[in-house]
Amino acid sequence: MHRTALTATAAVAVLLAAPAFADDAALRADAASYFEPVPMNAPALNGNVATRSRIDLGAMLFFDPRMSRSGIFSCNSCHNVGMGGVDGLEVSIGHGWQKGPRNSPTVFNAVFNIAQFWDGRAPDLAEQAKGPVQAGVEMNNTPDRVVATLNSMPDYVEAFKAAFPGEVDPVTFDNFALAIEAFEATLITPNARFDQFLQGDDNALTAQEKRGLQAFMEEGCASCHAGVNFGGQEYYPFGLIEKPGAEILPAGDRGRFAVTETVDDEYVFRAAPLRNIALTAPYFHSGNVWKLEDAVAVMGVSQLGADLSDAQIADITAFLHTLTGEIPEVEHPVLPARTSATPLPDDM
Amino acid sequence: MHRTALTATAAVAVLLAAPAFADDAALRADAASYFEPVPMNAPALNGNVATRSRIDLGAMLFFDPRMSRSGIFSCNSCHNVGMGGVDGLEVSIGHGWQKGPRNSPTVFNAVFNIAQFWDGRAPDLAEQAKGPVQAGVEMNNTPDRVVATLNSMPDYVEAFKAAFPGEVDPVTFDNFALAIEAFEATLITPNARFDQFLQGDDNALTAQEKRGLQAFMEEGCASCHAGVNFGGQEYYPFGLIEKPGAEILPAGDRGRFAVTETVDDEYVFRAAPLRNIALTAPYFHSGNVWKLEDAVAVMGVSQLGADLSDAQIADITAFLHTLTGEIPEVEHPVLPARTSATPLPDDM
Repeated sequence: MHRTALTATAAVAVLLAAPAFADDAALRADAASYFEPVPMNAPALNGNVATRSRIDLGAMLFFDPRMSRSGIFSCNSCHNVGMGGVDGLEVSIGHGWQKGPRNSPTVFNAVFNIAQFWDGRAPDLAEQAKGPVQAGVEMNNTPDRVVATLNSMPDYVEAFKAAFPGEVDPVTFDNFALAIEAFEATLITPNARFDQFLQGDDNALTAQEKRGLQAFMEEGCASCHAGVNFGGQEYYPFGLIEKPGAEILPAGDRGRFAVTETVDDEYVFRAAPLRNIALTAPYFHSGNVWKLEDAVAVMGVSQLGADLSDAQIADITAFLHTLTGEIPEVEHPVLPARTSATPLPDDM
Repeated sequence: MHRTALTATAAVAVLLAAPAFADDAALRADAASYFEPVPMNAPALNGNVATRSRIDLGAMLFFDPRMSRSGIFSCNSCHNVGMGGVDGLEVSIGHGWQKGPRNSPTVFNAVFNIAQFWDGRAPDLAEQAKGPVQAGVEMNNTPDRVVATLNSMPDYVEAFKAAFPGEVDPVTFDNFALAIEAFEATLITPNARFDQFLQGDDNALTAQEKRGLQAFMEEGCASCHAGVNFGGQEYYPFGLIEKPGAEILPAGDRGRFAVTETVDDEYVFRAAPLRNIALTAPYFHSGNVWKLEDAVAVMGVSQLGADLSDAQIADITAFLHTLTGEIPEVEHPVLPARTSATPLPDDM
């Protein structure tokens, strides 16, 4: 259990307000020790200048299925901006109808994660963007073919020049990734009802949602799922207290072990960020749990050793729904027309 | 060759203007006897009231991959609003990585076609919308499963109520199709350079493009490719004069014969609408021709018996590029969140 002392200001407020407000102030102060609201604007990026030109180029690349070998999959295929930033599948389907190994994480607020992918193998969104493009079971492309595709279309070349001014040869795979990062950093979801509560609106949450928030902190969920993203910051073994069944934690996927090759990192994953979790079923890296209530129950047993009551699960689930923020408005970009130099789609 | 007499007004203009204008006026008058500009606003629909609510619902449905059994394909997958309303593939790839039988036609300005599909088997866009959803090689879904999916999400139910006010049970497969039609009818591309020329701007076309327009009419292309959509109005045998090779006209696809079962309709297809043709490679129902110049040459031989010169082909191709209009701005819709009642994606 974690609870901070009332601040002087809050204490004064308690004296002046009805009892319900005293509870709200304490709950808010407690929550503020764990969580931060999603900012209203995209954060600054490390080593990337998110100009309007770069963001616009990134949007084009994000939506362009010609970045895949087959011409079928774009970033948006698995990180759909209309569906909570995910594809809503257990695991994504890619080139040749192959299944990927893990559930597609949301692109929304991903910029706030300490690293990308379930095992944190990419330090930032730019590095992440290079992965699925090349993965044989996903977009199955190569950096050279991506660059050749981009160079074949004058409108893309112009867009790269505008996005990376002063560079002699701006059409590179690295710049492709930087532009996508600049766009993805704009995909943030501020003003969730929880954030409204955190910033002072007592009425933003219902009584049940407040009980859920309280339980989320008291039962220990917030130990791993904290910060602006309610997770995404550190790595923990899945099954800290009790390993879940193989359908949820397949033995073949040893998580961060593949990154660090350290025994301590077997079945270790980055704590999943929980912003917009009500939109991103199914859950866990295996994507085998479809109901949020069930996911909460699994977490209670596996990570906390807590056999949460049905009422607690309902409360926490209700609270988690308040993490759904304002979905960014995204205009579908107009993509450059292919030319006779553009590599043909290849579905083999 | 087709050429109309100068109107009185145009004749006066000839007297007052430089010789170049006299040619332009005659060319414009000739063109006006074949073609109409794309209107600035969506046309009225037969049996469908395109309210804002209905259009917005249609946009959601158009972009929702959960309308497919696998959860992967939406209407936009094959009729990409960022890519000229097509997928840029020879033939579309659908459920289980199966290939469809024909090249995906553009959704842009499709509302102006007399009927939908290459063989015109759907009388309107609403009827068309029901096809790919159910086709085994495309979205592989059923009307019942679509309706169950929609009914499982309260936000969809509300959207249908708003789009079809007064109906007791508005969530139906018919209304699904009507909403998509209402949205698709907004996907029109006015103000192409050709339309600007047609409406009086002599400078909207270059000299080469004007020669191409002239040739397009004189050589007979405009006999089939006329009207607002430069085609899409009538049916003609592919190979009227000379059958193209089997790679372009596969023997197994007998076109409109499958609709009418009339011998006269063997290898008959609806004349392809040519608006935005520069954006919609590859060409023909087989999608086997990637270069617009090559498509023009094939048409010359097969439909006109004309062995067009390289210069004519270049001119006509240049002219066809002027049929690219203003691409509609489309905001990617936010889609309703699934519930525990939503059918699970099924990729089998």
